Amino acid sequence: MSDEDASKKLRIDFEPIGRRVKVSPGTTILEAARLAGIELVSVCGGGGTCGRCKVRLMSGAASEVTDTERHKLSKSEIKEGFRLACQAGLSEDVRIQIPPQSLTTPQRTQLEGEGEELPVTIDWKAATLAMQPPSLEDLTADITRFRSGLSGAGFSKVEIESQASVSLPEQLRKNLWQGQVVLRGTGTQKYRAVTFLPSEAVAVGMAVDVGTTKVAMYLVDLQNGGTLAKSGAMNPQISYGEDVISRIGYCNTHSDGRKVLQSVLVDTLNAMIEENCQSAGVTRDQVVEGVVVGNTVMHHLFGGFPVQQLGEAPYVAAVSEAVEIPAASVGLMMAPGAHVYLPPNIAGYVGGDHVAMLLATGTWNSKKNVIALDIGTNTEVCLAAQGKLYCCSCASGPAFEGAHIQAGMRAARGAIERVEIDNGTVRVQSIGGLAPVGICGSGILDAVAEMTMANVVDTRGSLRSGALGVIARNDRQEFVLVTAAESGTGDDIVITRSDVNQIQLAKAAIRAGVEVLLAVAKLDAAALDEFIVAGAFGTYLDLEHAVRIGMFPGLPLERFKQVGNAAGGGAKQLLVSKERRQAADVIAEKMHYVELTTYRGFDQLYVQNMYL
Amino acid sequence: MSDEDASKKLRIDFEPIGRRVKVSPGTTILEAARLAGIELVSVCGGGGTCGRCKVRLMSGAASEVTDTERHKLSKSEIKEGFRLACQAGLSEDVRIQIPPQSLTTPQRTQLEGEGEELPVTIDWKAATLAMQPPSLEDLTADITRFRSGLSGAGFSKVEIESQASVSLPEQLRKNLWQGQVVLRGTGTQKYRAVTFLPSEAVAVGMAVDVGTTKVAMYLVDLQNGGTLAKSGAMNPQISYGEDVISRIGYCNTHSDGRKVLQSVLVDTLNAMIEENCQSAGVTRDQVVEGVVVGNTVMHHLFGGFPVQQLGEAPYVAAVSEAVEIPAASVGLMMAPGAHVYLPPNIAGYVGGDHVAMLLATGTWNSKKNVIALDIGTNTEVCLAAQGKLYCCSCASGPAFEGAHIQAGMRAARGAIERVEIDNGTVRVQSIGGLAPVGICGSGILDAVAEMTMANVVDTRGSLRSGALGVIARNDRQEFVLVTAAESGTGDDIVITRSDVNQIQLAKAAIRAGVEVLLAVAKLDAAALDEFIVAGAFGTYLDLEHAVRIGMFPGLPLERFKQVGNAAGGGAKQLLVSKERRQAADVIAEKMHYVELTTYRGFDQLYVQNMYL
Repeated sequence: MSDEDASKKLRIDFEPIGRRVKVSPGTTILEAARLAGIELVSVCGGGGTCGRCKVRLMSGAASEVTDTERHKLSKSEIKEGFRLACQAGLSEDVRIQIPPQSLTTPQRTQLEGEGEELPVTIDWKAATLAMQPPSLEDLTADITRFRSGLSGAGFSKVEIESQASVSLPEQLRKNLWQGQVVLRGTGTQKYRAVTFLPSEAVAVGMAVDVGTTKVAMYLVDLQNGGTLAKSGAMNPQISYGEDVISRIGYCNTHSDGRKVLQSVLVDTLNAMIEENCQSAGVTRDQVVEGVVVGNTVMHHLFGGFPVQQLGEAPYVAAVSEAVEIPAASVGLMMAPGAHVYLPPNIAGYVGGDHVAMLLATGTWNSKKNVIALDIGTNTEVCLAAQGKLYCCSCASGPAFEGAHIQAGMRAARGAIERVEIDNGTVRVQSIGGLAPVGICGSGILDAVAEMTMANVVDTRGSLRSGALGVIARNDRQEFVLVTAAESGTGDDIVITRSDVNQIQLAKAAIRAGVEVLLAVAKLDAAALDEFIVAGAFGTYLDLEHAVRIGMFPGLPLERFKQVGNAAGGGAKQLLVSKERRQAADVIAEKMHYVELTTYRGFDQLYVQNMYL
Repeated sequence: MSDEDASKKLRIDFEPIGRRVKVSPGTTILEAARLAGIELVSVCGGGGTCGRCKVRLMSGAASEVTDTERHKLSKSEIKEGFRLACQAGLSEDVRIQIPPQSLTTPQRTQLEGEGEELPVTIDWKAATLAMQPPSLEDLTADITRFRSGLSGAGFSKVEIESQASVSLPEQLRKNLWQGQVVLRGTGTQKYRAVTFLPSEAVAVGMAVDVGTTKVAMYLVDLQNGGTLAKSGAMNPQISYGEDVISRIGYCNTHSDGRKVLQSVLVDTLNAMIEENCQSAGVTRDQVVEGVVVGNTVMHHLFGGFPVQQLGEAPYVAAVSEAVEIPAASVGLMMAPGAHVYLPPNIAGYVGGDHVAMLLATGTWNSKKNVIALDIGTNTEVCLAAQGKLYCCSCASGPAFEGAHIQAGMRAARGAIERVEIDNGTVRVQSIGGLAPVGICGSGILDAVAEMTMANVVDTRGSLRSGALGVIARNDRQEFVLVTAAESGTGDDIVITRSDVNQIQLAKAAIRAGVEVLLAVAKLDAAALDEFIVAGAFGTYLDLEHAVRIGMFPGLPLERFKQVGNAAGGGAKQLLVSKERRQAADVIAEKMHYVELTTYRGFDQLYVQNMYL
């Protein structure tokens, strides 16, 4: 290896964790992961004997597969690009996928959020049945025998859907024809048979918030509405596109794209069901009802609906009404007759997760003037005023998720989440207290606000040459947050003018959306009683800074409320409450959706709000 | 190769066609197929240039894959064992699967059968809709827009199942929001949306008879009930077991067995739908309704129901009631919202195909005394007498399908189907007039009957040593039907004592079943007005011979009726007629099923009827 080669830095991307590091040639993947602050399981300390640090090469090549790896990995794993991180040496830029089981520290996922636990009011019943097993004297078919048992227990009008009748015979035999049947529905209509369980088993429900980046799942006791277990995971669709637009693009260019994106998501959901069932001490046969909320694209990809029209004007949803789909029809491993409820979508870019958030935060029927928003690549904003509901979707871009930002990364360990500039001294705080490796949304927001206050940037977003901390490199100005000596990557961590501009575009889009809704409702910003900020980024952002850069209107800070993953809280409410499902329909019906792209005056508001 | 090797004959089995041939080492698969009377597509005459004579090695090995094959076959095909028949030389016993497209002569399948065409009375409607496409001024979601269109046409209560809502958005766009919607149901209940078609497209239905060995499909015009297209194919499950018992065994020993057997069948049905749609000039989106009939095991494997309990006493069905399953739930490529109706099963070994046969032949509501039976590995027998219905299932075994018979084969080209012994001279007739390569069911029945009449066998089934045509070989007596010089295999085609015994067992089982039903109904055989013989074998068998060997009671020949594939005819009736579906429920309810294994006196009747 020549000296020139050795001095060249390689760029290593870790997926789905969204972290990046530069390393010298010859570094192993395990060492690179450590430099990036990612803790891979490595019981043997890198000796190749434990075989736990399994990762997968997605693009680029590493050193030859070693005998140790041939010993520890199956042939099909090697074919699929799996490596032991401790064995594979790096010599070029690569993209690496880390399977969840290879991580010691679970990804930081937002699970807690607004949304009180409600009493269970959805219609379901459990009835104890004791049937005689078949014999040569009684050759009655299984389902007919089951129907007789149901009739005997007073349930004569019961629908047994095909998926239930496929699984019930085995459930009945496994339980020796004794146990409880779980039914959905009311006596006035037909009941639907969901599952057959041992007598003592509890019925549980599953509420899921499918975000573009992260997935949160909650297991809820359907007797008392209590949460039994919860977990978070990355949305595996990330490997097929960071944002919804690139995933729609994947579907447009791959004939099986919709099927692929649906099945990787369902696989992850099934693994989460398994995990949560284990921690709650139940089986998947006990999961009798589900709710999935997500933005319209996530909704469509989960349900298998076409998405092409969501990527082209006029961006209409295939389905906006609330739907209940058989869990088995999408491959979800729940009770055989379980259905999954998806709340209504408002528009192509305002989905059922927004409806869930409005339910959980009480925005939907508030008597006050309330703005509620969830910041993401698209930021959904809702205004409740004088008993009316208005909403819009702002194209705020992925800057707050770390994309298109020089040192940007998702909110994972090692990410700078707080920045303070005090009299010329820059202080940063990173997630997990590690040596910083990049900067996540809340950190970028802090940095830009602090840089504005410290007069490092001007109102148009230019870095003032000569200001403290500003250096010129490659013909451009950069502000050094962390020097190479203190960073975990061996390089300076900087904010560029382009980074600042990205934040300007993002915050202007959000603020313009807020202003449009206020204008449509003929309300002054000062008249807002509450300003609710939902979502993971919304939880961690510094409100004062958000107001300072003009992303939010200048209200007294006590009117702001950071509510965490309220969509998840709303999903839990929709799972147990019949009234909440009715309310979701009311929201969808009442909601006045404002399409910003055709709103007169939007562009002007957008430009006005670009300044810092 | 030593002389000894060269003189050794190899045994080559061709699947799913069920033909067998012995060849010398070094023979190519193409030559072997020709010897067996199988015409493979071979446009180039065996030069390896056309690549059409594709076959698959299922067990055993052939010569090395040639460069020609590497050129004509894909890597994955070579991995899966595909070969060009003209290139692969044989050196050991092998089993070879022939894909349908490699055959010049379609397999002989029974498509014609009893069952008059009925007027269409199932509830379906077509309504013309013209909707405005979405625009930036009208962002209504697709399904909501579709519902508005339906309301405008007077249909406000319409259920759109998840599979329909997954496909409708694309159908609506493809047809530029103008066309006809097809609905199932009545105005009093909810309609179900099935498909959206161009205005001029006709709605068609699909009726299928899934036999253990063969599958027959009919495409029916739902305006007038006329048959538009039909086709037959081998049941691809044969590769996983010749009969229902071995297929249940496959499911018991393979965790994905049920899924595998379901999906190979569905793949074949999808290919048949495609083929029939092409020949009828329609698309699969126009196939709005389906009916599938089959024995209980075929019913369960198609629907995905458990089959283990059908292989163990007391042999009960998982499902006996009539069911309607969404076509999409089993992967059938029909109109998105199409359902498939499966008529009720009577018992574990009397399935919906028997119900269909009783409908088509009019047995179910006959005022006469009628026996109707369908001969197979299990022979279902029904007796209609004095307004009552009785049935049973006889374990007649696979002898009439050519199994367990030394030279036995299915009714394919080259099979001996007729045998006559005239004054010591044996005459045979083979299917297609080819040099005989084996003997099928009707031929075996003829042979045994003629051998009995010619005094070649005695009443207990022993071959009389010294009788004309009887030779001793390998310490046993054989009757030579065709000499090596005249056969297509190069070997004598013989009937052994064991072959005769197999036929004795089969005919005794059938006759005992008939006698039990007569006994239960307290009816004398002579009082039977009609004796209906259904199914492919039943169509080709010689009635006089069947009476002669005691398989059928000795009624005047004019009382017998051979009705062909009446199950297929019944399936077509069930497809179009609401009244026939109601009748199927009546049959299932009225039917008095007699379990022969527990019937007192069955064993005695069985033994009594064993004699020739």
